[in-house]
Parts: sequence; C-alpha cells; structure tokens
Amino acid sequence: MTEFQGNSRQAEPWSAFDHQMMARAIGLAKRGQFTTAPNPNVGCVLVKERCIVGEGYHHRAGEPHAEVHALRMAGDKARGATAYVTLEPCSHYGRTPPCAKGLIEAGVARVVCAMQDPNPQVAGRGIAMLREAGVEVSVGLLESDARALNPAFIKRMQTGLPWVQLKMAASLDGQTALANGASQWITSPQARQDVQRYRAQAGAILSTSQTVLADNASLNVRWHDLPLNVQAHYPQTQLRQPLRVILDAKQRLTADLKLFDGEGERLILSPEHPDFATLGCSTQGFDLAVTLEYLVSQHNINHLWVEAGATLASGLLKAGLVDELIVYLAPKLMGSDGRGLIGALGLTQMSKAIDLHWRDIRQIGPDLRLTASLSAS
Amino acid sequence: MTEFQGNSRQAEPWSAFDHQMMARAIGLAKRGQFTTAPNPNVGCVLVKERCIVGEGYHHRAGEPHAEVHALRMAGDKARGATAYVTLEPCSHYGRTPPCAKGLIEAGVARVVCAMQDPNPQVAGRGIAMLREAGVEVSVGLLESDARALNPAFIKRMQTGLPWVQLKMAASLDGQTALANGASQWITSPQARQDVQRYRAQAGAILSTSQTVLADNASLNVRWHDLPLNVQAHYPQTQLRQPLRVILDAKQRLTADLKLFDGEGERLILSPEHPDFATLGCSTQGFDLAVTLEYLVSQHNINHLWVEAGATLASGLLKAGLVDELIVYLAPKLMGSDGRGLIGALGLTQMSKAIDLHWRDIRQIGPDLRLTASLSAS
Repeated sequence: MTEFQGNSRQAEPWSAFDHQMMARAIGLAKRGQFTTAPNPNVGCVLVKERCIVGEGYHHRAGEPHAEVHALRMAGDKARGATAYVTLEPCSHYGRTPPCAKGLIEAGVARVVCAMQDPNPQVAGRGIAMLREAGVEVSVGLLESDARALNPAFIKRMQTGLPWVQLKMAASLDGQTALANGASQWITSPQARQDVQRYRAQAGAILSTSQTVLADNASLNVRWHDLPLNVQAHYPQTQLRQPLRVILDAKQRLTADLKLFDGEGERLILSPEHPDFATLGCSTQGFDLAVTLEYLVSQHNINHLWVEAGATLASGLLKAGLVDELIVYLAPKLMGSDGRGLIGALGLTQMSKAIDLHWRDIRQIGPDLRLTASLSAS
Repeated sequence: MTEFQGNSRQAEPWSAFDHQMMARAIGLAKRGQFTTAPNPNVGCVLVKERCIVGEGYHHRAGEPHAEVHALRMAGDKARGATAYVTLEPCSHYGRTPPCAKGLIEAGVARVVCAMQDPNPQVAGRGIAMLREAGVEVSVGLLESDARALNPAFIKRMQTGLPWVQLKMAASLDGQTALANGASQWITSPQARQDVQRYRAQAGAILSTSQTVLADNASLNVRWHDLPLNVQAHYPQTQLRQPLRVILDAKQRLTADLKLFDGEGERLILSPEHPDFATLGCSTQGFDLAVTLEYLVSQHNINHLWVEAGATLASGLLKAGLVDELIVYLAPKLMGSDGRGLIGALGLTQMSKAIDLHWRDIRQIGPDLRLTASLSAS
C-alpha cells in the first residue's frame, strides 16, 4: 500500500475494541447526569483478556468515584487489566482517596483516559502518578464525547465561572409577553415539561424576584413532570433539587410564595443576606460576573440554568456570561408591541449583533426548541 | 380471513400499480412548477397492458396540456389504454381543445384522476363528458399529493384570491433591522439564494416602494442564483420572470432604480396607474383584499410571493390574507430596540395571538428556514 506512505497522520494508539470500551464508559458516565453535581460525570470500564471484569460510574458527590465501583466489582481480576476512564483519575485526597493510587494498588496494567483533568492545577498529576508506578497510560480517546459529558465542570475549572444556560420562551416574532404583561401561555405544556429535564441537570437555577412574583413560580424539579425516559433512570427517591438562586435587590419576596413551599434549598440574594454587600449591587442591578463567581466559590455551582425576563437575560448576554441559549419558539405571532426576548442592546452596526451557533433544533409538542451556543467552539 | 369481514372501510378501487402510475404522473407534473403559471401543474401517464405508452406534463400556459403530450406520444396505442391524470381533464374550449374530448377520440378506455377540477363552475364536467362516452372514470387516487402540486391554483379557483406566501428575515429575537434601519445582512447569502427558488415559482412578487428604495432591490429571478437542482430542470432560455407588483401610493419610485433594469414585467400601483382608483387606497394604505382580488382578476395571478417590511406584512396578516409564512431566522441577537418582524397588533389577550402551524424546518447555510401555515388545514 505504498500510496499511503506519504500520509503524515500518526496512527492512533487505540484499537476498535478500545473505542468500544471507552464508548461504554461514556454511556455509564451519563447515568450520573442528574445527581453528580458539583462533581463531574465519570464512567470506568475494567477489561481483562477482552472481558469486562468491572465497571461503574460516579453516582453522587461524596460517594465513591467511578474507578472505585469498577475496582470493587473486579476484585482480584483487576490485576493486569486495562481501565477505560472518561476523565483522568484523581491524584488527591478529597472525600475519597486518590483513584490513581487505587488503580496502582489493584495492579491495573494499562489506563486509557478520554481526557486530562480540566483543572489546570492538577491536570496530568494522576497520569504522572500512574506512569511513575509503571502503568501504561494513553490520553485522548473519544475526547470530544468525554468533554460533552461535563461542559459545566470544565468551564468552572478553567475559568472560575459557571456554565450558563439561558432559557427563554417566545413567539416566532420574538415576543415574551403582550404589552399588558399577559404571557400564559406562550409555549405548550410539552415545552414547560421539557424544562424540567434541564432544571434537574443544573446545579442551580437563577431567577429574579420579578419573575417569581409574576408567575408565582416554584422553580423546582417535579419528578412526575420529568420525561419518562429520565424517570426510568432516575428514581424519585434520589431526586436532587438544584439550589434556587433569586436576585431580590428590593426585598420583594414574601413567605407565602410557592417558592418557599416544599423541598430544595433557596438562596435569596436580598439586602438581608450576609454576603449581599460583596455582590456589587447598584442601581444598575447586581454585578453579574461577581455574582456568578460567588455562586461558584461559595456554593459550588458549575451548571447554572437561568429562567428570567429580558432584563437579566440581556444583562448576562451583554456581559458575555451566557454559554448556551435554549429558546422555545411558539408557532404564534404576537405583534411588535409586546415585550421583546431580550432588552435593548443599543446597536448601531449589524456587525455588533450577538452571534450564535445552532447546536440543536427540534420540535417539542407544537413548539420548536432552538439550542444555540454563544461561542464558536 | 373471517376476522376482517367486519371491517367497514370500503376497498379502494385502485391497485398498487395504479398508485405507482399516479405517483409517476405527479412527478411529471412537478417539472412544470416554474413555468406553468397561471395554469396548474398537471401530469399524465398512458398505460396499455401494464406498459407506459405515452406520458407528458403541462409545460407552459398556452402550450398543450399534459394529456395532449401523452396522447401524441402514444399515437394508436392510446386505444384501450388507461390514462392517469393528476387533475380532472378539462371540458372546455380554451387556448386548446378540451382534453376529455381528446381522450375519448383517442379511444382511451379508463381514466384515473387524482382530483376534480377545483373550479366549482366546471368541476365534474370533464368526468361527466368521459362517462357519457363510455369511459370508466375514478377520482381521488393520491389526491392530497395532487392538491399539493397546485395550492395557488386551487385557492384562486375556490376563493378568487391568490395564495400568498409571506417571506421574512429576522434575528432569533425577531428583529428585521437595527433602530437606525441597518439590516444588511441579517441572513446569509445562502438564504438570499434560497429566495430565488420561491420567486421563480411565483406568478407575481408583491413589494412596496419603501422596500425597493431601501435596498434598491430588483426583485427579479436571477437564473445563475437558482439552486443547481433547479437549474438542471429549468433551462436559462425558458426563464419566466414573475410580475413585480409594487405598491407606490406616494409615487416615490424613480426610473434609475434597479427594478427598472432588465427583463420581466412591472406593475407599479401608483396614482398614475389607470386602475389606481379601484384599489381603495386611503391614508391607511391600499385595501389589500381588493388589491389582491385585482391581481387575480386583471393579472391572472394565483401565487403571490411577498417580500416587504413590517407594515405590509402585518396588514396582510391582520386581513387574514396570508397562507404561508417563510421566515429565515438568523443565529443572531439584535436587541429589542430594533425593528420588529411584524408591526403592532394591539393584542390584550394571549388567545388573540395569530396561530401558526409549522410545515417545514430546515437549515439554509447558517440560518434556519421556518415554514408555517396560517390555517390548520
């Protein structure tokens, strides 16, 4: 096959079997998507002589990592095995001992990682620990799929900011309410149900007192409203409620609101809150970058799901703090005298418009759900 | 198979072979989609002893009907044949002799029509003429596909109004221009090219002097900009330019505009036009229902493609004159201080919003093209 000798691409160090096993580990990792926050979703498959001898995924923060489940399942069979892990094994003592150490002690001979740890402070340490102990390590198999498991964890580790999904609902002509404020309902019950899945995945839900008061919104996850395919993998008994963060600079929330019913924690950022002074609140509203950094550092939030009106939406967009936009577009025309999707941007040149990139388009009941990212990556 | 005897559905009078032949006739009919206006698209297949002996489609108004092409091709073999026709054969003397008569004289034994003539004045006459001559006739095979060939012809025949497609382009937040009027370009070159196909299918393009002046728009069909799959079936030498109808109540158009360059007819509805007084023009603008009826009765327009701004768009929508909306949605946010997709509707209740029904969603270059119909049918 001399005609291919000039090809400069280096051969991958992984076989088709390696790909299969890593794909399996990624599938396992996804099972933790509703429960691991603020930890990442991680899966692990242990293979010896082309047989799976152990596998597992991280279920919930504070519980064992994926590698621990796989090693426990494999027992003595881990000796000489290959471990497929969707993320570099950790090298530090946290709530659990380092997984790199566990793999070494179990006698694992080879470790294939989909990606390095995104935390620049620790990236490569787990790999180095394994290599020093004589374990063969390779990194990068199905990396983009592995990165897609944990956009929020990666963003936080690399920037100190949460990964922000901004949800909006509008008519085809971009209106979120009529001039008199009427907005129930622009979108369908199916679209409102679809929102439950996103809430369930988030570390926190961000909203404003205005939105809470307008709809008497509870902003919680209602297990019975989750799609059936989510319920099937996510028992009601394990339901995790995301933290509900409400910006309430004018202290307008009252105890009789639905928000204060039922389970789940609330963080009401009003002048009564001891940290209020640190959030840079002025007549212009909260300093949103500071507030988001605060949610990361003080409340361990990676993934922030925002449900609010045009003011907060455009504030986040103008500050470049939004990673993904989820717009439910109803098959309706409401007229331009209603309320717009985002506030005024004061643009004078088309080149200054905020550019988006479609990521996913689908029909949810009678509505369309348009997912767009803010960056080109 | 006694268990099926209770089934009350009447068996269709058509075989699988009949379906195949009618599908072929529909495929042939489509070939006329850029050239037959104001006539309908019609295809015909003649079959004898399960062999196709003749087929054809209507190419262009004034030229032979589909049945004539098929009969000419079949010659003597038409005797005893079955004719599959997408539309009831005509019974009247127009620019060509009646097709029903032609089929009878050629000795065709059986005629299968996809649908009756939509003109209530003549519907059934061709069928009756055939039956009186002893030809076996059945009607309704693949009717909905056949109706989809000619939505504009059917609408005109049944209502006296044209079938109106309203084209718009906006950012995701429903803006068609910035506050200062800047709008070049919201959508991509691919979206603007896609528009060429629709223009090429239309009998007329409706716009306003404001739109023509803002963009110095020529509003014609540029063969080189048509998609390649259209060019392949539509030779440049046969290019048909739709009539360009411009509402110009204040006589603002000047002879130096691109609109007046090149081929294609123009109908400038300004006070200088002899029929202007009949169009009910007031300070509120044209009486749009009257104007559309005028385009049907005086200019033979079935299919009207509208490219204009928010004023004409909302005027047509409020008057219930729009059949289909084609919205190119750009992956951009422009801010609610720009210009809205349609004008104010003055709604005070959500139930009064204009309801749409998605018909087709697809990506055109970086943009989305959303097609929605105004009626539930």
